[in-house]
Amino acid sequence: MAAPAVRELPEPPGLPQPLPEPPVGELRLETVLGALSDPLRIRIVRKLLVEREQFDHPCGWFGLDRPKSSLTHHFKALREAGLIRQRQYGLERRSHVRVADLEARFPGLLNLITAWTPS
Amino acid sequence: MAAPAVRELPEPPGLPQPLPEPPVGELRLETVLGALSDPLRIRIVRKLLVEREQFDHPCGWFGLDRPKSSLTHHFKALREAGLIRQRQYGLERRSHVRVADLEARFPGLLNLITAWTPS
Repeated sequence: MAAPAVRELPEPPGLPQPLPEPPVGELRLETVLGALSDPLRIRIVRKLLVEREQFDHPCGWFGLDRPKSSLTHHFKALREAGLIRQRQYGLERRSHVRVADLEARFPGLLNLITAWTPS
Repeated sequence: MAAPAVRELPEPPGLPQPLPEPPVGELRLETVLGALSDPLRIRIVRKLLVEREQFDHPCGWFGLDRPKSSLTHHFKALREAGLIRQRQYGLERRSHVRVADLEARFPGLLNLITAWTPS
C-alpha cells in the first residue's frame, strides 16, 4: 500500500516568530531518528503530515490522551530535534512539520513516517 | 551528492544459525529508529552497507576505538532492533545488515543511512 501524501498548506501572513529551533544546516539524522523512536512522537508527526487542516495545530487537535505536561515535553523534543516548528499564539503553541527542511536534508524520511502504522 | 550503493554479497553455504532476532513481520519502525539514534550505531550499519568485503564481519573489522564490552552492547542493540543479523563463529560474532528485510518493511531507510555523514 502506498504511503499517504504529505499535505502542504501555504504560509499565512502575520505569523508569530517561531520558537528557537536548529537551523536546517545543523539538523542531524541521529538526533531526528532519536526523537522519532517514541511511538507517540511518530504519531504526532504523521498526523501533522497527512491530516493537516490548518497551517499549524495546537496540541488539543491531536486528541491524545496524555497529561498536558507530557505533551508539552514531546512537542518540545520534536522541535529541538528539528522535526516541527512551533509558534506561540497567546497562551497556545501550535506546530507544523518542517517539510521542506527535512526533505532537503533527509530525502525519504517523511515517506517512512507517513507509511508508519501503530502496532 | 548521491548516497553510495549498498553492497550485496551472496550467502555462502554452511553458515552457523543466526542468533535470536525479531522476524521481519515484527520489525517496528520506532524501535529501528531508536537503535539508530546513536552515531556509533549508524556508523556501524553504514559501514556494513557500503564497505562490506565479506558476507559478515567481526567487530574488529570496524576499527572502532571502544572497549569490547561496549561494542558487544551496541551490536546486540542493533540485532535486537532487527537491523543486523549476527552469527557465532567459535568465539567470534559476525554481522551483516538485514538488507532485504529492511527494504521490504521500511523502503527508503537504507538510503537515509548510506547518505549519513559524521558530524
